[in-house]
Amino acid sequence: MNETELIAALSALSESSTNRKILVGIGDDAAAWRPSRSRLSVISTDALIEGVHFTRALGNEAIGHRAMAANLSDLAAMGARPVLCTIALGVPRDELHEGVLEMYAAGARLAREYNLTIVGGDVARSPVLMLCITVVGEVRPTRMKRRAGAKPGDLIATTGALGASRAGLDVSQGRVHLRDGLQDVALRAHCFPQPRLAMGAWLAASQSVHAMTDLSDGLSTDVLHMARSSGRRAILERVPVSSSALAAASAQGMDATEYVLAAGEDYELLVAIAPRAFRYLNSRFTKRFGSGLECVGRFEAGEGGAIVGSSGEVPLKASGWDHLRRGDSAGS
Amino acid sequence: MNETELIAALSALSESSTNRKILVGIGDDAAAWRPSRSRLSVISTDALIEGVHFTRALGNEAIGHRAMAANLSDLAAMGARPVLCTIALGVPRDELHEGVLEMYAAGARLAREYNLTIVGGDVARSPVLMLCITVVGEVRPTRMKRRAGAKPGDLIATTGALGASRAGLDVSQGRVHLRDGLQDVALRAHCFPQPRLAMGAWLAASQSVHAMTDLSDGLSTDVLHMARSSGRRAILERVPVSSSALAAASAQGMDATEYVLAAGEDYELLVAIAPRAFRYLNSRFTKRFGSGLECVGRFEAGEGGAIVGSSGEVPLKASGWDHLRRGDSAGS
Repeated sequence: MNETELIAALSALSESSTNRKILVGIGDDAAAWRPSRSRLSVISTDALIEGVHFTRALGNEAIGHRAMAANLSDLAAMGARPVLCTIALGVPRDELHEGVLEMYAAGARLAREYNLTIVGGDVARSPVLMLCITVVGEVRPTRMKRRAGAKPGDLIATTGALGASRAGLDVSQGRVHLRDGLQDVALRAHCFPQPRLAMGAWLAASQSVHAMTDLSDGLSTDVLHMARSSGRRAILERVPVSSSALAAASAQGMDATEYVLAAGEDYELLVAIAPRAFRYLNSRFTKRFGSGLECVGRFEAGEGGAIVGSSGEVPLKASGWDHLRRGDSAGS
Repeated sequence: MNETELIAALSALSESSTNRKILVGIGDDAAAWRPSRSRLSVISTDALIEGVHFTRALGNEAIGHRAMAANLSDLAAMGARPVLCTIALGVPRDELHEGVLEMYAAGARLAREYNLTIVGGDVARSPVLMLCITVVGEVRPTRMKRRAGAKPGDLIATTGALGASRAGLDVSQGRVHLRDGLQDVALRAHCFPQPRLAMGAWLAASQSVHAMTDLSDGLSTDVLHMARSSGRRAILERVPVSSSALAAASAQGMDATEYVLAAGEDYELLVAIAPRAFRYLNSRFTKRFGSGLECVGRFEAGEGGAIVGSSGEVPLKASGWDHLRRGDSAGS
C-alpha cells in the first residue's frame, strides 16, 4: 500500500459522516465549512517531523519559520485570510528549551506578520522534535478557490520562478557551492520561504482564476494533482527556472527543467486562468506585485499530463515528493 | 525550565498578536473565536505519541478511540457541539498500514457517533506512531463555559465517579487483577472512554454553571487548574471513587482517595455551580442522564486548594500529570 492508497483508504473511512456545513473535505489544500451564511472558514494541518521533514542542521529559526510558512501557504492557496492557529510541539527529553523557544519564536514572528493569532496547542515529550500546526482562515464564499475547477483551455501560471528552495537545500547539504549572491538567495528561499498570502487573496478575487493550489511538492506533482482534481489534462510548455536553480542544476550536471519539475517547497501559487483574461490580469498583477505571472502551460480535455520538449510532447510524470516514500507532508 | 515555565514562555511569544475576533486564547480546554455575530467556533489540539501517551500493547482500536475521545472531551468541556476535525498521522516505516487503518477507523467511528466530520489531515513518516488531532466545535456565545469563572461559594461537582481509567491501566499493565465484572469495566473505561458531550451541552445551557473543564489530568490537577484560572481557592470535601478504582487501589495497598486524586483520563466533566441552584439542577440532570452529579467540594475566596481529611484541611497538591515530566498532553 503506497501513500496514495493509504490516503484513499483513510478518506473512505472519513466520508460516511455527511455534514451539510462542510463545503470542502479531504483532498484540497484546506477544508472549508460555513460557520454562518456570509462566511467560510478554512482549515489545514501539517505535521513536520525531525529526520523526515527537516534536520537540526537547518537551525531552530528556519525550522519554526518553515513549519508556519507551509501552513500559511495552504491558506494562500484557498484565497483565504489567516485567522488563528494551534501548535502541537513534541519535544525530546534532552532538548534545550531555549532552542524550542527560538523555533517557536520564529514561527510566531511569521504568524504575526500575517495577522495569524496562535490560540493554543499542546506540548508533549517525543522521541524527536515534532511540530504539528493547524491553521484556520476566512474567505468570502464567492472567492474561495479550489484545486479542482480548471477548464479546458485555461492557462496554467505560477506566481514566480521555481527551484530556489531546492537549490538552497543542495547548498545547505554541501552538494553545490554557488557564487555569493545566488548562494544567499537560495539559502534564504529554503530556510525562510514567504507564503503568497497577498497574491492568493488578490487572485482569489478574480472570477477568471478557476483553480489554485500552492507549489509545495514540486511543479510536476502539483500540476498533475490539479489536473486530476479538475478532471483535465495538463500540458506544460515552459518551466520557469530561478537563477539559483539554474546554477545549482548546472553545477551538478543536471537538466534544469528536470531539476525544477521535482523541486518542492517554493510555495509559489499555481493557478488556472481563463485564457482571454490572462493578459489583462497579468498586467494588473504585475502592477500590484512588481513582477508578472509565469505562464507555464495550459489545460485541455482529457487526463494525465505532458511536457512539450524539443522533440514534441512527452508524458509528464510526478517527480515531486510522495509523502510516505520521500518524507514530505501531505496537505489536508 | 519545567512544563509550566515552558508553556508560559510559549504563551508570551504568542500573545503579541491581538485579534478582536479571538475570545479565548491559550490556556483553556479550547480556544474560541467569533466567525460571525451569532456563533462562536472553538478549537482544540492534542498530540498523542507512542511510548509517551500510549504503548502499542493498548491495541490499535483503543489508540484511535482514545485520541479522538480526548479531543471531543475538550469540546464537551466548552459546552460545544462537534463540527469537524483534522488528523495528522505519523507512521513508522515498517508499520503495517492495516494497523493504521484499524486505529483510524476506531477514531472515525467515535467521530461519526458525535457528528464530527473528518475534513482532512496529513500522513507522514515518523520514527514512532503519532496522532495529532485538531477538533473544531460550535457553541452559542451565551453558553460557552470556560475553566475560569468559578465564584466563591460555588459547589464543585463531577459528572461521575472517578479512577476507572487508571484502574484499567493498572489491569492492562498487569499490576492488578480485579474480579470479572470490574476488570471489564476498568479496561473499557481505559481503552474506550466516552466524552461527555451531551452532559457538557446540557450543563452549558445553565447560567448557574459558572465554569467547566474536563478531567483529563487527574482530579487534584484539574481542580487546582480551575481554581487558578478562576482566581479562587478549591476545597475538596469528598472524592467520588469508582468501584473499580476502589478495588484496584486496595489490591495495591494504596489509599483510594490518593489513587483517584492522581488518576487522569476519566473524561468526566468538572463544574462549578452556584450553590442555590445545585439541588434543582442535579435533580434535572439525574432525570436527564440517569445518574446524578457528584458534589466534591466548593470554591472560596483565596488561592490554592485544600482537601478535608479526618484530621482537618491539608493542602491539595497537583498529583496528576505534568505533561513534560510524565508524558500526557496539555490541552490547548
